[in-house]
Amino acid sequence: MSEARTARRGRGGGGAARRAERTAVRIEAAKYIERNIPDLEILNEEALQIIEANAETVLEEIGVNFVENPAALDRWRAAGADVEGERVCIPRGLARELCKTAPSQFVQHARDPNKSVTIGGRNLVLAPVYGPPFVRDALGGRRYATMDDFEKFVKLAYMSKWLHHSGGTVCEPTDIAVNKRHLDMLLAHMTLSDKPFMGSVTEPSRAQDSVDMAGILFGKEFVAENTVMTSLININSPLTFDSTMMGALEVYAANNQAAIISPFIVGGAMAPVSVAGTLTQVLAEVLAGVAYSQLIRPGAPVIFGAFVTSIDMNSGAPTFGTPEAAQITYGAGQLARRLGLPYRSAGSFCGSKLPDAQAAYETSNSLNMGLLSGVNFMLHACGWLEGGLVASFEKFVLDADQLGALHQLAKGVDMSETGQAMDALYEVGPGGHYLGCAHTQANFKTAFWRTEVLDYKPYEQWEEEGARDSVQLASLRVEKLLNDYQKPPIDPAIEEALRAYVAEKKASMADAFT
Amino acid sequence: MSEARTARRGRGGGGAARRAERTAVRIEAAKYIERNIPDLEILNEEALQIIEANAETVLEEIGVNFVENPAALDRWRAAGADVEGERVCIPRGLARELCKTAPSQFVQHARDPNKSVTIGGRNLVLAPVYGPPFVRDALGGRRYATMDDFEKFVKLAYMSKWLHHSGGTVCEPTDIAVNKRHLDMLLAHMTLSDKPFMGSVTEPSRAQDSVDMAGILFGKEFVAENTVMTSLININSPLTFDSTMMGALEVYAANNQAAIISPFIVGGAMAPVSVAGTLTQVLAEVLAGVAYSQLIRPGAPVIFGAFVTSIDMNSGAPTFGTPEAAQITYGAGQLARRLGLPYRSAGSFCGSKLPDAQAAYETSNSLNMGLLSGVNFMLHACGWLEGGLVASFEKFVLDADQLGALHQLAKGVDMSETGQAMDALYEVGPGGHYLGCAHTQANFKTAFWRTEVLDYKPYEQWEEEGARDSVQLASLRVEKLLNDYQKPPIDPAIEEALRAYVAEKKASMADAFT
Repeated sequence: MSEARTARRGRGGGGAARRAERTAVRIEAAKYIERNIPDLEILNEEALQIIEANAETVLEEIGVNFVENPAALDRWRAAGADVEGERVCIPRGLARELCKTAPSQFVQHARDPNKSVTIGGRNLVLAPVYGPPFVRDALGGRRYATMDDFEKFVKLAYMSKWLHHSGGTVCEPTDIAVNKRHLDMLLAHMTLSDKPFMGSVTEPSRAQDSVDMAGILFGKEFVAENTVMTSLININSPLTFDSTMMGALEVYAANNQAAIISPFIVGGAMAPVSVAGTLTQVLAEVLAGVAYSQLIRPGAPVIFGAFVTSIDMNSGAPTFGTPEAAQITYGAGQLARRLGLPYRSAGSFCGSKLPDAQAAYETSNSLNMGLLSGVNFMLHACGWLEGGLVASFEKFVLDADQLGALHQLAKGVDMSETGQAMDALYEVGPGGHYLGCAHTQANFKTAFWRTEVLDYKPYEQWEEEGARDSVQLASLRVEKLLNDYQKPPIDPAIEEALRAYVAEKKASMADAFT
Repeated sequence: MSEARTARRGRGGGGAARRAERTAVRIEAAKYIERNIPDLEILNEEALQIIEANAETVLEEIGVNFVENPAALDRWRAAGADVEGERVCIPRGLARELCKTAPSQFVQHARDPNKSVTIGGRNLVLAPVYGPPFVRDALGGRRYATMDDFEKFVKLAYMSKWLHHSGGTVCEPTDIAVNKRHLDMLLAHMTLSDKPFMGSVTEPSRAQDSVDMAGILFGKEFVAENTVMTSLININSPLTFDSTMMGALEVYAANNQAAIISPFIVGGAMAPVSVAGTLTQVLAEVLAGVAYSQLIRPGAPVIFGAFVTSIDMNSGAPTFGTPEAAQITYGAGQLARRLGLPYRSAGSFCGSKLPDAQAAYETSNSLNMGLLSGVNFMLHACGWLEGGLVASFEKFVLDADQLGALHQLAKGVDMSETGQAMDALYEVGPGGHYLGCAHTQANFKTAFWRTEVLDYKPYEQWEEEGARDSVQLASLRVEKLLNDYQKPPIDPAIEEALRAYVAEKKASMADAFT
């Protein structure tokens, strides 16, 4: 594929490197998706205007809370909002006006410049699952995640052709103290991968550590001038902005680092049980959050986020891959485009406890809608299981394989003479077959997306080989990728400096586990 | 849901009926989908015009073969085509002109008038899998299908709220002679279900049997005036129309019964390895086939069909749920709408041997694209496994459940005051939750699509109950539906007449097994 880039293991000078190269494993990395197909727009102009007007009403008449954050209240007051206690009521139009300084797209630089990503426009950047405290694989079952698991997921993301981003908390390394684990996680992303990554948001000081470590990796001046991290700032829906997340946002915005401003909504609990009502709340929350980022630093890069699921009214459990979530995701994409902001939503969402048919239906529903709703940054694009409680090794590679299909679909239809294939139609004619014709011979290698994990074998062969299901085939692929993994080259002095930073920081703190 | 219809078991007069009603199982049947969301259109005007022009060139310069069918050649000659041997070259524009008499939508009547379907327009009618010689379930594994299996699938389709159509050859009853099995299949659809169904196409005489039996069921005069069957006429791609399928088409068109005119394409084998080339061939084939149906009887109801998969260039196996198939399906939908014809494509397609994650990814990709590409009649909407070789009982109910999600997505967004939910936003405000608010209380029952088979239970409960995967949960649902099944009421005289017709026909023939 033309947009594939190839890295070889063991780059660097000397005979050892050349020997390594001879036995090298090709590690391919596709460019982020540049859509050549349209978005699906399910809301008409009238519906969009109603939702936009209602969101302004929410901001003006109901307002939002900025909790335990007097400086934020001062900023809002200075900007012209009505502040009473922690409640900020934002006059009609003010938030939207403030959002105008946010860029419609931005570059997030990667350590390998070939892997830098442009977030916004017609692009789609794919990043792995974020946040699960548990991991699961076929062999070990479900268990608390550790730093060892974390590193494995970073390696799998590095090895995946279709992931453009290393992500952030690919799982929670629960064996490391809460106040220290962000350091180990950053170190893993920075040294085990050369793809772009996310910073810590669990405390403002940890956001600052992220900025400081990025300064070591990229050079302090480079970081001052460029965006090298995109981090996840959740809004405490409904309509609440807590001081931890806002503190992290303040650090990132001040340093010109990107933030996803993302309502976190289980519909029916944190938002009304209706699509239009939820979209209204999502828009109001994002307007307030993005406006606040621009109060910190006009021009700071931000993303319109929407993490939205519905609820099972029987059990109260969040549900995934549902039609209501799809409608909200499509609608929020339209609202984001009208605001001129990059859009984050969708992912490999599922409620299933196992990487079974349920998981795949739910995930595929969400991945397809992510592509067609115009998402620019898709967090959780692979590996999500059990409502996000679990990162699944097998599902990680199964989902990542499906991401390849999204790349191919997004390319659109080749209408060149080769694409039209009239020569093939003339050559073959009625009753013939195309397997051997010149057009097929010339084009078959690149014509179709190819899976790396699904089974297409004849039934008899499949049965002889053990009648393996998707999970068994995925286990083999996880094993192979981890065996083939080799660390991308890094300046040893930089790695040394990063390790020293982490060691020093850790030495300055007692372990905290809450 | 407002469009759900409810039937009760044991209708009919008398105390027995009333007693039956007290213990009745509710059998719900949703109305066919009336889309309130737009189609995804991936081809621009220029691309569409190129494909349309190329298809005319194919018809004029390459032509199509009508094999062993002198009457067809005569009809084409009379219509103005150049006929040489069995090759029919159709002058530019002629086929498109002939297609104009085909209706843009039509009603297919069901035995229960509430279940009649309108095929075309913004509608989507869902029918089960068609054609597999094997069946599979968790208990019995993979085995040749029998009439007993066939009847079970007819019952499951009848019990499914989301299937609007009973389909045709839901599996091949291989225990019945080839020349007789169509009679048993028709009898099963006519007596075990009251949903619309398909006729036989494997020989013109079997198409005639279908028309005759429909005459017994609906009344001969009714059938003469109305469409009561939609049958599947495959084109032998590339560009070949065999006499068996055309013979069946001739019977149906002459009797004003509907036919799906459907290229059957594994891309790379029966069509070029390119999307635009395949679309060109599909359009040329459908133009020729539909035009031919209108030569038989102007105004005969037909559907623009496109059964398209790609090929795995390693194994030669057909692949399903792929991005190339999606592009073709989206594009063919646009071509069908420009022709003003109802459109058939997509389904629960997968290549997997098991109803596992692979099967569900592939199926979900295809179902979503079916909805968004504007399909009006979706054959194979549930139960398809292993490239169509196998009808899976568990996958049938898993897929059918997903069809419910399509219904909900297609409804679009409710922009009424209730949908806007501003009262809920005012009531709850920042930091609250919506679970108990008045808007939620009033609307939660109908707010969200509900699964009948997927698992949303808390992890601990799920584990205690045996940590069941999707297949195990689906097995239970299959068992429950078959236990709950009760035959819809039918006039005993009609059933008697149908059985007599079948017995008489069978007695007149020796068993044939090829």
